[in-house]
Amino acid sequence: MQFQISDEIIEHIQTLIREGKDAELQLYLEEVHHADIAEIIDELELDEATYIFKLLDSEKTSEALMELEEDMRERILDNLSAKEIADELQQMDTDDAADIISELSEERKQEVIDQMEDEEHAEHIVELLRYDEDSAGGMMAKELVMVNENWSVTGCMSEMRAQAENVTRVHSIYVVDDKGKLKGRLSLKDLLTAPSKANISDIYIPKRDYVNVHTEGEEVARIMQKYDLEAIPVVDEMGRLVGRITIDDVVDFIRDEADRDYQMAAGISEDVEADDSIWHLTRARLPWLVLALLGGMVSVTVLGTFDAALAEHQALFFFVPLIAAMAGNVGVQSSAIVLQGLASKSLRGSLMNRLLKEVLLSLLNGMALALLLIVGGVLLLGFDFWFGLTVGVSLVSVIIIASLIGTFVPIILDRMNIDPAMATGPFITTSNDIFGILIYFSIAKVILGF
Amino acid sequence: MQFQISDEIIEHIQTLIREGKDAELQLYLEEVHHADIAEIIDELELDEATYIFKLLDSEKTSEALMELEEDMRERILDNLSAKEIADELQQMDTDDAADIISELSEERKQEVIDQMEDEEHAEHIVELLRYDEDSAGGMMAKELVMVNENWSVTGCMSEMRAQAENVTRVHSIYVVDDKGKLKGRLSLKDLLTAPSKANISDIYIPKRDYVNVHTEGEEVARIMQKYDLEAIPVVDEMGRLVGRITIDDVVDFIRDEADRDYQMAAGISEDVEADDSIWHLTRARLPWLVLALLGGMVSVTVLGTFDAALAEHQALFFFVPLIAAMAGNVGVQSSAIVLQGLASKSLRGSLMNRLLKEVLLSLLNGMALALLLIVGGVLLLGFDFWFGLTVGVSLVSVIIIASLIGTFVPIILDRMNIDPAMATGPFITTSNDIFGILIYFSIAKVILGF
Repeated sequence: MQFQISDEIIEHIQTLIREGKDAELQLYLEEVHHADIAEIIDELELDEATYIFKLLDSEKTSEALMELEEDMRERILDNLSAKEIADELQQMDTDDAADIISELSEERKQEVIDQMEDEEHAEHIVELLRYDEDSAGGMMAKELVMVNENWSVTGCMSEMRAQAENVTRVHSIYVVDDKGKLKGRLSLKDLLTAPSKANISDIYIPKRDYVNVHTEGEEVARIMQKYDLEAIPVVDEMGRLVGRITIDDVVDFIRDEADRDYQMAAGISEDVEADDSIWHLTRARLPWLVLALLGGMVSVTVLGTFDAALAEHQALFFFVPLIAAMAGNVGVQSSAIVLQGLASKSLRGSLMNRLLKEVLLSLLNGMALALLLIVGGVLLLGFDFWFGLTVGVSLVSVIIIASLIGTFVPIILDRMNIDPAMATGPFITTSNDIFGILIYFSIAKVILGF
Repeated sequence: MQFQISDEIIEHIQTLIREGKDAELQLYLEEVHHADIAEIIDELELDEATYIFKLLDSEKTSEALMELEEDMRERILDNLSAKEIADELQQMDTDDAADIISELSEERKQEVIDQMEDEEHAEHIVELLRYDEDSAGGMMAKELVMVNENWSVTGCMSEMRAQAENVTRVHSIYVVDDKGKLKGRLSLKDLLTAPSKANISDIYIPKRDYVNVHTEGEEVARIMQKYDLEAIPVVDEMGRLVGRITIDDVVDFIRDEADRDYQMAAGISEDVEADDSIWHLTRARLPWLVLALLGGMVSVTVLGTFDAALAEHQALFFFVPLIAAMAGNVGVQSSAIVLQGLASKSLRGSLMNRLLKEVLLSLLNGMALALLLIVGGVLLLGFDFWFGLTVGVSLVSVIIIASLIGTFVPIILDRMNIDPAMATGPFITTSNDIFGILIYFSIAKVILGF
């Protein structure tokens, strides 16, 4: 059943385009799912992609447009007239249309909206553009089935059938009062089995799960996931029903968030893919590398201040990368666990308890590792005892400090309302490198005396 | 609308339990969503948690059971009799019941299954237990609405109503032939608008999206996400419809996978949360630290072989942590991008092109960074030119090698069918530390000559 994109398929399509075999091309693409068409288009040259966009009808291309990579979409939209874009948007649900239109320049945006024939659809899109794209308002669609609590079941059925025309998946029928305030919801099953003279107000399930237009996307995802919801209604500040968010948008949101956090932890500051341009990839990677370089310069300076030790204790310097690496690894481990706890809101209990636990945990890990190092070093490699002790004590101390930094920097950032994901990867490794080296040589100075 | 767990709520419930106010407790918990009950129970002592489980009816507790943290669930199940567990399972969908039962010991499993009253439900669960839990068979539920292609619309309607009783969310009505082979699906809308004398075979939509019982969970998630599916049917080797997977299970799967990849990249080898026991957390973190320690020992040895340089070129050693840190950071960046490409199957094109691109990209990044370092070092800090050149050339070389390792180790592992996520974090940083130091001193030897 699975469509698998291949070089043969791409070449076949390129040949059809080159030879202008429109009918054959249309016939071939008719059978292909719009998500697969998007995959094909992503692999084509811009003029070929535009050709396909102009050839297929907007019902199909509008759905493919949503699935394209941002770069390609931007370039195709540049090649389409305002009227052509308006036709695409006309076919889309309001949430998707708003996403597309928000990528255009202000001037283009206005032109496209002016070209839209369906006034109501255009108005809905304009409304959605007001909200931050990572808020419930920015994620919701205006398409939903809504009935008044005062209606009868019979009146409701016919109204509902009319509304359902525009809604791809019904999920729930929402119940509002005369002022449009969300009162609750109905299942299709309830509606079908209720006596036809009953009023909606007698049979609806009072509202329970809903979000506000300003609720953050992350929170929406968390609620829908926790309560296994397939759709959630969105209300404005007055409690009026203004839209709904469906689970498929949240799935994309979850995946995007996870990708972003993962990249941030790896020191990549923009959303990139392996196939993006070199310029784009460089821009995403260089800033963190510069930070790491500056951190490295600090560690050079720190090491330089201990040059007196070099003549007597050469081996001390050989252990620098080991100490730095351990500090970096421990810091990243601690920060990763705390970050996931912060993201899922599952971190509970006092800071003091967490501090004690982290110290105990690092003490355990540190002692096990130090023992391994001392036994290996003193017994097998013939280190001086005091030297072994220095490295061992430093290792334990560095691990404790590094894990505390890894644990508390994200917590503190979170309390200051800064994205704690900033504090993973390069940031934690770089600062832990520096602290690690500083602690190591300070301890060496005390034990070995130089 | 949101329930927010707090210390007051926990204490209130603990007081009610202690004072044996069962009626009040039941009344209080009746209003609370099962996902929130699970959150409360996770915070209680085992005897309190068990008390609540025995107090509430199994319709409510069975749903809460699914949402509990694994530790707590395991301990509560230990406290329940086989009959009590069987009652809980009776209330659950088959996929959830199979997940729970697979956590029990072999002996206990048998006892619980023997105690189940609904033979068919038990048989379904036993069938699901056969599949690997990360396969479509292990994720699917047996609950679905299925009609025969030869039925009439009228006959279908009544049969469907009966079946829908057991299915929480219908999504789609699946159409099979006399042998039970999946033929396609019907929407409720189609069924309602079709002439009542029509046969199902005239109106169904031929099958398109489905998976096999052995399809991997990751692939199921990818397909459902790509095609925006809310449910997907699962067929056996004979093409017979045996179950279906709904989007809510896939959402959990995606989140779990993302968490696991993130933790793996951070050097955490088991699925842990910040609130897990110290022992559990240590076990998850220590193995990677031991690996990093052993890697560190190798770098100590490598540095030791260059001790001849120490007397003449002290400053060389001061730059070791900088070089190692850059190698580590670049490696993690490259591997993260490749890993995401592998996971989403969006990596296309030849290895040679990827190699050229990665070299070009690192050359760009490396030259920018080396320039910064040389200008800073020679002009501002007064380095010797040859020394600055050594560090600069090393930096560019190390960045290129590190990015090649970060790019190709995951690709090679993936081709060998080993999880490429293994190759992120500590593994990449540690090996790049070693290679970085080796390259740095080799270049220094050539330029500075020692």
